[in-house]
Amino acid sequence: MVRLHIVNPNTTASMTQAIAEAARKAAAQDVIITATEPEFGPASIEGFYDGAFAVPGMLVRIAEAERSGADAHLIACFDDTGLDAARSAASAPVIGIGEAAFHLASLLGVRFSVVTTLSRSIPVIEGNLVRYGLDRRCARVRACELPVLSLEADPAAAERRIGAEIESALKEDGADCIVLGCAGMAALAERFWTQFEVPVVDGVAAGTGLATTLARLGLKTSKAGGYAAPGAKAYSGLFERFSPKR
Amino acid sequence: MVRLHIVNPNTTASMTQAIAEAARKAAAQDVIITATEPEFGPASIEGFYDGAFAVPGMLVRIAEAERSGADAHLIACFDDTGLDAARSAASAPVIGIGEAAFHLASLLGVRFSVVTTLSRSIPVIEGNLVRYGLDRRCARVRACELPVLSLEADPAAAERRIGAEIESALKEDGADCIVLGCAGMAALAERFWTQFEVPVVDGVAAGTGLATTLARLGLKTSKAGGYAAPGAKAYSGLFERFSPKR
Amino acid sequence: MVRLHIVNPNTTASMTQAIAEAARKAAAQDVIITATEPEFGPASIEGFYDGAFAVPGMLVRIAEAERSGADAHLIACFDDTGLDAARSAASAPVIGIGEAAFHLASLLGVRFSVVTTLSRSIPVIEGNLVRYGLDRRCARVRACELPVLSLEADPAAAERRIGAEIESALKEDGADCIVLGCAGMAALAERFWTQFEVPVVDGVAAGTGLATTLARLGLKTSKAGGYAAPGAKAYSGLFERFSPKR
Amino acid sequence: MVRLHIVNPNTTASMTQAIAEAARKAAAQDVIITATEPEFGPASIEGFYDGAFAVPGMLVRIAEAERSGADAHLIACFDDTGLDAARSAASAPVIGIGEAAFHLASLLGVRFSVVTTLSRSIPVIEGNLVRYGLDRRCARVRACELPVLSLEADPAAAERRIGAEIESALKEDGADCIVLGCAGMAALAERFWTQFEVPVVDGVAAGTGLATTLARLGLKTSKAGGYAAPGAKAYSGLFERFSPKR
Amino acid sequence: MVRLHIVNPNTTASMTQAIAEAARKAAAQDVIITATEPEFGPASIEGFYDGAFAVPGMLVRIAEAERSGADAHLIACFDDTGLDAARSAASAPVIGIGEAAFHLASLLGVRFSVVTTLSRSIPVIEGNLVRYGLDRRCARVRACELPVLSLEADPAAAERRIGAEIESALKEDGADCIVLGCAGMAALAERFWTQFEVPVVDGVAAGTGLATTLARLGLKTSKAGGYAAPGAKAYSGLFERFSPKR
Amino acid sequence: MVRLHIVNPNTTASMTQAIAEAARKAAAQDVIITATEPEFGPASIEGFYDGAFAVPGMLVRIAEAERSGADAHLIACFDDTGLDAARSAASAPVIGIGEAAFHLASLLGVRFSVVTTLSRSIPVIEGNLVRYGLDRRCARVRACELPVLSLEADPAAAERRIGAEIESALKEDGADCIVLGCAGMAALAERFWTQFEVPVVDGVAAGTGLATTLARLGLKTSKAGGYAAPGAKAYSGLFERFSPKR
Repeated sequence: MVRLHIVNPNTTASMTQAIAEAARKAAAQDVIITATEPEFGPASIEGFYDGAFAVPGMLVRIAEAERSGADAHLIACFDDTGLDAARSAASAPVIGIGEAAFHLASLLGVRFSVVTTLSRSIPVIEGNLVRYGLDRRCARVRACELPVLSLEADPAAAERRIGAEIESALKEDGADCIVLGCAGMAALAERFWTQFEVPVVDGVAAGTGLATTLARLGLKTSKAGGYAAPGAKAYSGLFERFSPKR
Repeated sequence: MVRLHIVNPNTTASMTQAIAEAARKAAAQDVIITATEPEFGPASIEGFYDGAFAVPGMLVRIAEAERSGADAHLIACFDDTGLDAARSAASAPVIGIGEAAFHLASLLGVRFSVVTTLSRSIPVIEGNLVRYGLDRRCARVRACELPVLSLEADPAAAERRIGAEIESALKEDGADCIVLGCAGMAALAERFWTQFEVPVVDGVAAGTGLATTLARLGLKTSKAGGYAAPGAKAYSGLFERFSPKR
Repeated sequence: MVRLHIVNPNTTASMTQAIAEAARKAAAQDVIITATEPEFGPASIEGFYDGAFAVPGMLVRIAEAERSGADAHLIACFDDTGLDAARSAASAPVIGIGEAAFHLASLLGVRFSVVTTLSRSIPVIEGNLVRYGLDRRCARVRACELPVLSLEADPAAAERRIGAEIESALKEDGADCIVLGCAGMAALAERFWTQFEVPVVDGVAAGTGLATTLARLGLKTSKAGGYAAPGAKAYSGLFERFSPKR
Repeated sequence: MVRLHIVNPNTTASMTQAIAEAARKAAAQDVIITATEPEFGPASIEGFYDGAFAVPGMLVRIAEAERSGADAHLIACFDDTGLDAARSAASAPVIGIGEAAFHLASLLGVRFSVVTTLSRSIPVIEGNLVRYGLDRRCARVRACELPVLSLEADPAAAERRIGAEIESALKEDGADCIVLGCAGMAALAERFWTQFEVPVVDGVAAGTGLATTLARLGLKTSKAGGYAAPGAKAYSGLFERFSPKR
Repeated sequence: MVRLHIVNPNTTASMTQAIAEAARKAAAQDVIITATEPEFGPASIEGFYDGAFAVPGMLVRIAEAERSGADAHLIACFDDTGLDAARSAASAPVIGIGEAAFHLASLLGVRFSVVTTLSRSIPVIEGNLVRYGLDRRCARVRACELPVLSLEADPAAAERRIGAEIESALKEDGADCIVLGCAGMAALAERFWTQFEVPVVDGVAAGTGLATTLARLGLKTSKAGGYAAPGAKAYSGLFERFSPKR
Repeated sequence: MVRLHIVNPNTTASMTQAIAEAARKAAAQDVIITATEPEFGPASIEGFYDGAFAVPGMLVRIAEAERSGADAHLIACFDDTGLDAARSAASAPVIGIGEAAFHLASLLGVRFSVVTTLSRSIPVIEGNLVRYGLDRRCARVRACELPVLSLEADPAAAERRIGAEIESALKEDGADCIVLGCAGMAALAERFWTQFEVPVVDGVAAGTGLATTLARLGLKTSKAGGYAAPGAKAYSGLFERFSPKR
């Protein structure tokens, strides 16, 4: 049995529910999924600024789940918001859905392209790829120019616009594999796979699988380097109650 | 239920059994593991030359397992021998235990070191890391200078020598995570983890987990690029019966 | 005249004062410096976790200074905490003292080494170097293993320990230039320069110079890509009053 | 006098003859060329799978030629099939026609493009470029989408299709030098050179020159690292007679 | 007060004057600018060959200015002609206008494109970007195909052609910042900034600011590595009087 | 028959003669070698500054040899002084002995180390390796700290000091191949090869072989990109007579 904690780093509860549903479809039978969203923060994450305000509330959820005995954590924003800080906060493994998708995609083809929401997210994603070392496996990061929350609101338009970008990626980028670059696109993966006859990787499913795998193998986050637990320290003001203790 | 085919690319059947056992320990309950080794080829793989003679026999096993309905294949040599060719041969996903270990290790720490058997394998492994893009995450590849088959023969010596290299890796390389660089080291991972208090990743377990994950998600190898199925063609002489047909 | 806003992203006001003093020494006569620290957040930043809790309070200070007409902003933590988010929040240029030091050091020598406080900060700094592209110019990031706040508390010990690392950097790393890797080391730069006869770059001075230069040239942060201003959006709970408006 | 052994790794004898002829045209007068093809293996090499089945038979030819006193070996497939294994098998230098062409092209211009046969070979070639470090010098790898053996069958069509790709490479890729990416294109190099007024490098000629140069200088393959001779070991089944002895 | 020596490495005095004027506009009030051009060398620098003949005369000017007490030197050719040699010759800091522009641009946006004069200069600039490590921050180097000296002769045509390239850079390259790639374009920066609403960095202004900053901070070129002063040595013939003495 | 022009870019005629002798030993019988040194410039090249003053005189020799019908040019300084400018000046191929040695070494082993004269030359050589893309193949550049001209003066000391560095390279760098990093070390290559049992590549021999190969194949420098012939232009003062004409 694996207790998987999925945190949606934005505060939109309906999106948390959709993510949890997608994760449950992807998970093995013995995986028990709890899904949370922060108590405070942005309703969606589009670019660096929203990301910065999403992290503290998300770290609070990671710490709570850690205390409740989670075997693994999954950060369900494609930007892998706050991933390094979350690894410092947890001893269980922590996976971001962006990195999960990149890793799995690089096992399925020679080169993948990513289709995300707004072009302002492209530098966030490209920066992550460089950090992970997987930029060499990515042909291009593309944007369909639909805001995160509109994916839920108008799914037909979303399917059309994302499909058009996938088509261009296969023709122009030399990609043989597609990564869907937003948690809100999870439901579309299978459809596109059938349509385009290439693997289409959704980060929520990929991350559910990877986090489960790490937990099942008993692997934990290393505390010997940059992910060491934060030292005891006073945090002031709004954050006083989040001060790390040892 | 996932039917996982593990191929040990060398012809040493006792090693196949040990690998299968390690994989079964690591696998979820619904994973059915079949383990094979080639009918022809080298008794162990140490360096580029042995590797080249291991691949054809291994590809035959991949093709047989594919016809028997395997949901995923795992190549159980840390050199990821013949991985690209195997991906061309299969529609199910194919994972190498080397890449599996690198990918998982890069999710657990900032930077990992690898401890393999003979130093002649170091360039093979370093070359793979560059190909995968994960060289940026690897601090150093080390050798304990024990031949592959001696790991089984003298496990106490193996433990001592590998342990000494892990110690150096943590002190000198700035690594916060260790990858064991040979299928024959699978049984030692847990012990080292306890001893050194850092994650120690064994490729057999890592690969079993990753291959299962891909299969469970229904993800398959892309046939749209470099891993397209081989075209129909005459292979002559010893290899006549392995000629690809369409 | 240039109005330079320096934000110390930790909440330790005495450190803000020391930084402001160092910056005033380094600045041209027509530079008017205002120095702030966040109203809420960690007392010092050591590693990823503290960094994440430092950013929101710091972004609030950036926004306030922007409204007060700052011509440039300087983030006075060597980790360049929240730099990308700050660039999204500002139209004036934003510089981090880490990147400032890296850029100037790369103009003075062939290869620099960095001496920072705790080794847990090494991955943060190395990650930044990769993002900026300047990892190729950096020989090594070293830690003197003194916590940030102890630099003020015991300056003699600090000088000894940092000096020992500089000596090793020049002998072992092939560095011909040194970067001091913490805002709290600003006062030591000149002494080390005299002692070791190589350029020793302090980020506070470097950042003051660079931010002033950008402001003087009328250069501003690009709003055409990843640093576009955040879209109007509801932030909830603790962060409600920080919701971006357009 | 230099005794150069050229091995065509596919089993098509007419192609061996054409390669030998091209090599003899390119060679200095004192170079004695022997050309072989494997006794068993694929009739042409298109992608990873064919490549894997071509190597063992080719290594047998390398070993035979080594015993006959070859001063250098040239692998005449643009994929540099089995190059690392061949270097382990030989003490004389071993060159692949792909790497030979890349190295010479990088001495003649700022940046080269490659025109190969089928697009399924692009990842093989790109992978090699990364391994050699010469990806930085390559603008793009292009495919004319003609199978290897059709180059001989319809040379007029080949010339037209390859010429069209060269034209695009010069216009779109910023290349100032062209590499022909298949042993079967050797005869076309001069024609294209005249037509496009840029250097057009054919791997067979380039490899003949480079292998001769190494032999003439008395340079041999290093046995101190990854190319050490294979250790004595039992190969079983079909490969029994190829077991390495010491 | 900062005494800034600007050397125009070509011998066209009218260009020196225009550069000095642009620098004075950009400089702080306490910066005293002296501008020189070599006594011997090419009238403009277009490509590697002109560059090689420009350096000795420029180094003579650097040495003279050094003796006259310059606090910093600026090389006012976008190719950063002779930059490494100039650093060896000086103890004051030396900046090239190309590198200055790259460094400042990388502080203002995510990714910049360069617009230079002739396409033959593209490899010079690309080579510099790689050396500096900033190629990762550059989307593309473009040429407007106008010779250096025609920028002065027909400014309207220059503005039109350069503007067209900027437009393409923003649309096609994903750049959010523009670098003008020739000292002769200095006067156009502000206009383009207004027109395209992205930062447009001119190297003369950038270099004036950066060189002043280094001088003000008392930072000097490292003499501990590759920029050590040249050893005493006989230079013969035309160069006899330039022999380095100690 | 190949007419090879070797230019020693320093003005020490005895070194030119030693280089010519080494080249003649390495060359095929039909290679006619002419060796020159510049009429003006430094007596030896140690670092960036000497290099800059060596280039114009060397380019004059390249141009003269070009007019005399040279089939290829070899620049006999390990720094590859003025290589790009020389390629612009010539239509015959131009090779530097540094790059020649790097390219051949990368064909013989997995990873090479370089042993040069003074440590001030290390950044010059490392910079070249990055430009060529071959830094990935180089384990380390080492200096034996003997000035160029002392190699001739005290060959026994030279042999001892260089030998010690080779020994360290093999033990500490993981190199399996050695490159001798100065034209003045040519005579020592064979001795070290015998002593250390790894390939030891001398640039003069390597360059003679490579330049001959290019000439024999009729390959010429591309004029379609950065190596286009210099445009007609007035060079003034000392350099007036070297003005390029069309």
